[in-house]
Amino acid sequence: MPRQVSRDRSCIAETIAIGSELLNGGRTDSNSLRIAEILGAHGIEVRFKSIVGDDRADIAVVLATAVRRAGIVVVTGGLGPTADDCTREAVAGITGKRLVRRKEALEGMTARLTQWGRTPNKAQLRQALIPSGGTVLPNPVGSAPGFALTWKGAVLVVLPGVPREMEAMMRESGVPFLTDRRARSGRHLPEPIRRSVFHTWGLPEADVEANLKGLIPRGIPVGLGLLASSMGVLVSLTTGSRRSVSPGLIESLEQGVRVRLHEWLFAEGTDTMEVVVGRLLLKQGLTIALAESCTGGLISHRLTQVPGSSAYVDRGAVCYSNQSKTAMVDVPVELIAGHGAVSSEVAASMANGIRRRAGVSIGLSVTGIAGPGGATDTKPVGLVYMGLSAESGETITKELRFHGDRSMITQRSSQAALDLLRRWLLGRAGDV
Amino acid sequence: MPRQVSRDRSCIAETIAIGSELLNGGRTDSNSLRIAEILGAHGIEVRFKSIVGDDRADIAVVLATAVRRAGIVVVTGGLGPTADDCTREAVAGITGKRLVRRKEALEGMTARLTQWGRTPNKAQLRQALIPSGGTVLPNPVGSAPGFALTWKGAVLVVLPGVPREMEAMMRESGVPFLTDRRARSGRHLPEPIRRSVFHTWGLPEADVEANLKGLIPRGIPVGLGLLASSMGVLVSLTTGSRRSVSPGLIESLEQGVRVRLHEWLFAEGTDTMEVVVGRLLLKQGLTIALAESCTGGLISHRLTQVPGSSAYVDRGAVCYSNQSKTAMVDVPVELIAGHGAVSSEVAASMANGIRRRAGVSIGLSVTGIAGPGGATDTKPVGLVYMGLSAESGETITKELRFHGDRSMITQRSSQAALDLLRRWLLGRAGDV
Repeated sequence: MPRQVSRDRSCIAETIAIGSELLNGGRTDSNSLRIAEILGAHGIEVRFKSIVGDDRADIAVVLATAVRRAGIVVVTGGLGPTADDCTREAVAGITGKRLVRRKEALEGMTARLTQWGRTPNKAQLRQALIPSGGTVLPNPVGSAPGFALTWKGAVLVVLPGVPREMEAMMRESGVPFLTDRRARSGRHLPEPIRRSVFHTWGLPEADVEANLKGLIPRGIPVGLGLLASSMGVLVSLTTGSRRSVSPGLIESLEQGVRVRLHEWLFAEGTDTMEVVVGRLLLKQGLTIALAESCTGGLISHRLTQVPGSSAYVDRGAVCYSNQSKTAMVDVPVELIAGHGAVSSEVAASMANGIRRRAGVSIGLSVTGIAGPGGATDTKPVGLVYMGLSAESGETITKELRFHGDRSMITQRSSQAALDLLRRWLLGRAGDV
Repeated sequence: MPRQVSRDRSCIAETIAIGSELLNGGRTDSNSLRIAEILGAHGIEVRFKSIVGDDRADIAVVLATAVRRAGIVVVTGGLGPTADDCTREAVAGITGKRLVRRKEALEGMTARLTQWGRTPNKAQLRQALIPSGGTVLPNPVGSAPGFALTWKGAVLVVLPGVPREMEAMMRESGVPFLTDRRARSGRHLPEPIRRSVFHTWGLPEADVEANLKGLIPRGIPVGLGLLASSMGVLVSLTTGSRRSVSPGLIESLEQGVRVRLHEWLFAEGTDTMEVVVGRLLLKQGLTIALAESCTGGLISHRLTQVPGSSAYVDRGAVCYSNQSKTAMVDVPVELIAGHGAVSSEVAASMANGIRRRAGVSIGLSVTGIAGPGGATDTKPVGLVYMGLSAESGETITKELRFHGDRSMITQRSSQAALDLLRRWLLGRAGDV
């Protein structure tokens, strides 16, 4: 048998996501990541996550396991009005409580539905059933209330699975319930778990790791995480709840990451490449237009996903066919005939053409072979050219070769093009 | 204590995903969905999923729990060469086996690295350590081998966390190991779990459910799943491994879904809206060009993500600014001044303009207010107009109002525009 995880379970949390669609229905559980973040800010560490289907017996098995290893168990899903939702019955069954219709649960739900011009139907009335002795957790954005109760020394917080509802309830009543309970027990509140995130582009994961070697001195309880994706390598520093770390030490480690990865670091925290680039464009008072071939509109889409981007994005030309490269961004027919549509020359011409047509400060272009078809003897799948054209007349081009499938190649191409733009904007920041 | 899940654990599987980044690092576990699909095809049902960090003690706790409730435990992650990877040590520790360097593991790894022009370094050599008595599972696409072993009557299959490697190993050696073991035990192989998926657009989840009420007769062991997202409502029919269902009955239930949701059903299985639309365009020999405002290139991106889409996608104009609507797709200045950029008239003009400019069969346009800014007294966030212009001169426009944040509104707008196109293509299919 394994040893007990820790003598003090009170700062160890487990999440349980309930829903058959999470087992084999193509949906991943993202609630548990938000819960880990919210609890971490209060010093509670999610160490275990479980996923189980809408099955009373299986839910009971998972709940019984969770309370043995975690002092805080946050359950999401299965509180809805449909027949397969059975979380409240499963919790009542395993904890030996009766389900009782609670006035405050019913009133909150009725008020919400009235606001939407509806009255609760029979199925929805089931949602007001709460295990006896439980505390009702109101739902400020939806109809199904949640609840909290203590069982075998652990606190169960049970919330709906809809992310928006779960998150609002966790913040507004789940966390206050937990911290209040802890304060009343006379135990001091643990230190928040601190997590710093750095986003790099252009350096392989193994090299990121090599650059960070020895950063964290032996015995210091800070975890270093690396996460590679098509958007680059994410680096994280995470403190645990088990031993505290001084803020000064964390800041010096953060500074260490910045210095060691300076050349490739494009964002920190929740920032994305398109947010960083948008901020630079706005600050420098510049406007941009895109000319995309293999990325098919992805760069335009990413830039315009940022609220307020209409201040600097003027337009984008998705010039997929050769004729459209000529018609939309004035690439000479001879240039395509002579060098091929996937060439440095055409990338430059596309960037110049869209900049001039749009009358913007910067034109940015991508042309490449995303595959699986389209490769030639000299031009393999993954070969991509990008171009940047500035009002000054300056034109930069770059050749890159990516591995992966069609989707990975277009994602990487979009990231590389935005990074080219970012570096150019930073380079001229001194001159502004 | 909960009752035992089932007397026969041999067809119940649990997945364990290992990696601290899955606990609080912003990465969701998608491996387990692929594993559930692969095992389901062999009649093995994933009923429990666990996620745990790179922590030997915590991994041991989760493994001990898993073998009590599942006969097949598939572990992914933590087999890499970096210091935090400790899955093999944790498995060896809890099962009481020694780690031994295995010749076949070392040879496979060395061969792979040689192919990449590298030799194994000290950290990689650790990857050839396998718990004694375990079966080495070769890695056909990466360097770290996996392994399988029996412990407490359950089979543990341990694989790397890289999805491509995990999937190849699961198919090529994990599943054969499991089925071979079962065949040798003299037990018959269970029936495959059958899962049928239907994609609908345009009907709220509650109405989808109402339309399907009573579809599955009482007592028939087929699960009906509904999953709402910005891309519509997904409906699934899933058989379990516990009781078999005749293929004829499943087909009649599938047919029932098709009939009851006919009006809103746009795809089945793994097909997406862009795949379905692309297939119709190709079949009818039509070409298309896009004019996008609030969707910012998303429709172009989605259509061009389909391999072979260059056969029907000519170009896309992301006309974000008002000037670009005039310059790129010939929307008259007076039309924008008179009706506003977000109007039925401008949507029609954009669709006509891009169709004429590109010389294609169909022009498709979207203009709307994605928010959070940009709303006026008469035009709220979420108001979207789309237009479709055909060579015949026919022009269709549609007004829609979406709820949600910027990202949800653009996603929904792209789906609605593609569905408008799909319906139009189906409508003319009879005439072709």
